[in-house]
Amino acid sequence: MAKPTRLSGFPELLPSGRVIEQYFLDVARQVFELHGFLSLETRAVEPIDNLQGSGEIAKEIYVLRRMHAAVGEADPGLGLHFDLTVPFARYVLENSAQLEFPLRRYQIQKVWRGERPQEGRFREFTQADIDVVGSGVLAFHHDIEMAVVMSALLAKLPIPPAIIQVNNRKLAEGFYLGLGATDTQRVLRAIDKLDKIGADRVRVLLETEAGLTPEAAAKCIQLASIKTPDASFADQVRALGVQNDLLDEGLSELAAVVTGANSERPGSVVADLRIARGLDYYTGTVYETQLVGFESVGSISSGGRYDNLASDGKQSYPGVGISLGVSRLVSVLIGRGLVSVSRAVPSAVLVAVTDEASRPASELVARQLRDRGISCEVAPSADKFGKQIRFADRRGIPFVWFAAAAKGESPEGDTVKDIRTGDQVPADPTQWAPPLDDLTPRVISTIDTTAVSEESS
Amino acid sequence: MAKPTRLSGFPELLPSGRVIEQYFLDVARQVFELHGFLSLETRAVEPIDNLQGSGEIAKEIYVLRRMHAAVGEADPGLGLHFDLTVPFARYVLENSAQLEFPLRRYQIQKVWRGERPQEGRFREFTQADIDVVGSGVLAFHHDIEMAVVMSALLAKLPIPPAIIQVNNRKLAEGFYLGLGATDTQRVLRAIDKLDKIGADRVRVLLETEAGLTPEAAAKCIQLASIKTPDASFADQVRALGVQNDLLDEGLSELAAVVTGANSERPGSVVADLRIARGLDYYTGTVYETQLVGFESVGSISSGGRYDNLASDGKQSYPGVGISLGVSRLVSVLIGRGLVSVSRAVPSAVLVAVTDEASRPASELVARQLRDRGISCEVAPSADKFGKQIRFADRRGIPFVWFAAAAKGESPEGDTVKDIRTGDQVPADPTQWAPPLDDLTPRVISTIDTTAVSEESS
Repeated sequence: MAKPTRLSGFPELLPSGRVIEQYFLDVARQVFELHGFLSLETRAVEPIDNLQGSGEIAKEIYVLRRMHAAVGEADPGLGLHFDLTVPFARYVLENSAQLEFPLRRYQIQKVWRGERPQEGRFREFTQADIDVVGSGVLAFHHDIEMAVVMSALLAKLPIPPAIIQVNNRKLAEGFYLGLGATDTQRVLRAIDKLDKIGADRVRVLLETEAGLTPEAAAKCIQLASIKTPDASFADQVRALGVQNDLLDEGLSELAAVVTGANSERPGSVVADLRIARGLDYYTGTVYETQLVGFESVGSISSGGRYDNLASDGKQSYPGVGISLGVSRLVSVLIGRGLVSVSRAVPSAVLVAVTDEASRPASELVARQLRDRGISCEVAPSADKFGKQIRFADRRGIPFVWFAAAAKGESPEGDTVKDIRTGDQVPADPTQWAPPLDDLTPRVISTIDTTAVSEESS
Repeated sequence: MAKPTRLSGFPELLPSGRVIEQYFLDVARQVFELHGFLSLETRAVEPIDNLQGSGEIAKEIYVLRRMHAAVGEADPGLGLHFDLTVPFARYVLENSAQLEFPLRRYQIQKVWRGERPQEGRFREFTQADIDVVGSGVLAFHHDIEMAVVMSALLAKLPIPPAIIQVNNRKLAEGFYLGLGATDTQRVLRAIDKLDKIGADRVRVLLETEAGLTPEAAAKCIQLASIKTPDASFADQVRALGVQNDLLDEGLSELAAVVTGANSERPGSVVADLRIARGLDYYTGTVYETQLVGFESVGSISSGGRYDNLASDGKQSYPGVGISLGVSRLVSVLIGRGLVSVSRAVPSAVLVAVTDEASRPASELVARQLRDRGISCEVAPSADKFGKQIRFADRRGIPFVWFAAAAKGESPEGDTVKDIRTGDQVPADPTQWAPPLDDLTPRVISTIDTTAVSEESS
C-alpha cells in the first residue's frame, strides 16, 4: 500500500476527536430516548428515482454500480442517500402495516453529498435526526415538540449558545401569493440566496426570474428581514399590508411554535422570516439553528414539516423532524479548539507485566477489574516498569497496577500507582475503583457556558 | 413517491429488530472498551486501488461516481469499503505520526459487498471489529488475546453456544511447501472450497490447477480434516510425515493460541485445520466462528493476523484482528425466532392528556420523569383515557400517568397505572420510578443457554 493521501470532504477523526464525537452521539441518543423516540436505521442506498424530485439537492447524489457487474446486467439505479428524511419516508411507506402511528423515531447515520467541500461542509457526514410521522394526520403540537427536544439536546452539549430560528413555508408562500407571485418556489429560491449574494442581487432575481414588480420584490426582502424573539413578528408582517389566507395560517402556526417552545424552554427559539431551507419537501414549519458567535459555519440543526413526502397516492404520512449536523458541529469545535478530552483511550488502568511468564497473573488482575466495569489493558511488553509507566502516561491512562503474583508473591501485595501524583497504594482488584472522574474519558469544554445555562435552563 | 419495494441484500429492521441489534452493538462496545480498545471510524469510501489486491473480494466492490460530475472531471476512482481492516490499515499509515502503538481500536460500521444475497449474506451489513496494530513489530500474545476478547463478548450475548475455530496460514503454507507445492495460494483457495464442493472435487482442483501429485493432494485434504480442542492436532499433523520450517512455526503458534485461549476461557477455541479464510492479507493465525447448531449460516466472527497489510515500503504495521458479523448474527436470530424484545419503544410511561388546553401540565410531568432518567412520551391526542391506554398497550408501554393538574386539581392527586395488572396508585413524578426491568426495553432469549454458560464461564 502506498503512503495514502487524504480525500477532501471525507474527514476522519483522530482517537481524541472520536471521543468527542461519540460523546455527542451518546448524549443525542440519551435525550432522544428519554423523549420516547425509538431507534431506526435505513440502508445507505436508495433507488435514484426516490432521491430525485427533492429539489436542488438532486445534482449532488453519488451513484453506485458493481465493479464487475455482468454484461447485460440491468443497472439497478442506486445512489447513496443525501439525508435521512427521504429514506425514512420510504421506510414508512414500505412498512406502514407493521408500524404504530404516530411513529416517533431517531436515526443516527452517515449521509453523502457530492458538494464542494469547505469548513463544516463535507461529502460524508453524520446526522442525528428525530421525526414524528402520523398516518393521515399529525397534530400540530409536534412542530413545537421538535424545537423543544432539539433545544434540550443542545443545552446538554458542551457548545456555544445555540438559537433555533423558525419560519413557516405557508407564511412565506401566502405572502408571495398575496403579492401576486405565480411561481412561489422561484421566489423562495431567490430569497434562500440572501446570505450568499445579498439583497440587491436577490431583488434583481425576484424581478427578472420570478416576475415580481419592484414594489413586490422589495416587500419580499422586507419580509425576510423580520426577526423577533416572540410572536410580535406578526404585527410587522401585517404592517406590510399583504392579505392572504395561507399567510394567515402560516402566521398563526409560527406564532404557536415560537410561543410554545419558548414557554417550555425560554429563549430557545426566535421567529426568523429569512429562513427558507433548500429542500422542496417542506410544507409548513422550517427550522435552522445558529451557533452564537459562529454564524459563518451555517446551520447546525435544521428540519421542518413535510405533509406530502411520504405518500403513495392512497395514504399519506405527514411528518415533522429536525436533524443535528453532528459532523459539522464536532469539526467546528475541534477545529477551533473549543473542546478537548481527558484521554483518548478507554483504559483507566494499565496492568504492568513483570515478565512474559507471569503475563497470566496480570491478565487475571485485568479480568477482575473488568468484571467490575473498570476499563483496563495489560502492558504489551515486559519492559522495565519506568518504560511501562511512560507507556501509560503517553496515552493519558491515569493508573498503573503492579500485580504481586507476577513476582511470585501473594496477591495481597498488589499496588496501584496514580502516575499523575506518584502516589502508590496497596489495592485489591476485587475492591479498588478509580475516582468516578477517571473511570471513562471526559469531554472538556473550554467555552464559558455559564451564560448559556442561565439562558436555556 | 410510489409504493416502494425492498432491495434484495439491503435488509432493514423493524423497530423491535433494531432494539436487538442495538443491544448487540452496545454489548460489543462495552466489552471492547473494558478491554481498552478505543473507538475509531473510517470514511465509507476508499480509492479503488487500495481496495483491490486483497484477493478474490475485489470483484464485489461497489464503485461510486457523482451523478452530475462535470464533463471532463477526473473520476476519483472511489469505491465503498468491503471490510474494516483494509481502511483501518490505510488510516494507520496515514496518521501514524499521531498515533500511539501498539494501537488497540474497535470499529463498528457498515460495509458493502456486491455479492449474491442469501441467508445471512448481505450487500450491506454491520461489522464490529477489534484490531491491535504495532509499529514494526507486534507481540504474538495479541493473537491469543483476540480470541479471548471475542469469546468474552460472545458469552455475553443471548446466542447459541459459539466456538472459535483457529488455524494458521504458516502451518498450511509450510505443509504445502513441504509437499512440493509451488503456488500455495492456489492450494489454499482450493482447500477453501471444501465446504462448498466437497473433497473429491477439491482433490481434482489440487491435482489439475495446483499441480500436486495425487498423494500430496490427499495429504492436503487429510490436513484439512484435523480438528482438536487442544494442542494434540500437532501429533496428527506430524503423523502425515511432512517436514518444513514454516510448518513448525505455524504448529507452534497455533498450539499457543489454542492452549492460551482455552486456559483463559475453557472450551472457547478449537484448532480446525480446514479454516482457510478468503482474504489474501492474512499471514499467520486465522479465526472463524461457528454457532453450534447453526453451522449452515457460516462464520459469525472471523479474522486473523496480517503482518504486511499496513506497510508503505519503509515502515510496516503488523496487526491482528477479529470481527463480529453483527447483521448476520442478528438476522439469523430474528429469522429463526430465537430472540425477542419486551417492547420496541424506549418509553416506560405514557403521560395521558386530558384536553389540548392542559397539554403543558402533562408535558411538565414528562419533563420531571425525564430529568430522573425515565423515558416517556406524552399522548399525541386528548382521546378518551381508554383509547390512550390502548395506545400504550399496542406499543408495550407498561405505565400510563394521569396528571391531576391537567384536570385543574393539585398535583398531589397524580396517579400511575400499570396497564398489565390494572393497578393504579398515587405517584409523584419527582419520586416515582418503574421497576428496573421496565425501565428500558429488554432483549429476551428463547434459547436455553444453561449449557452455554457452564461451558464458557
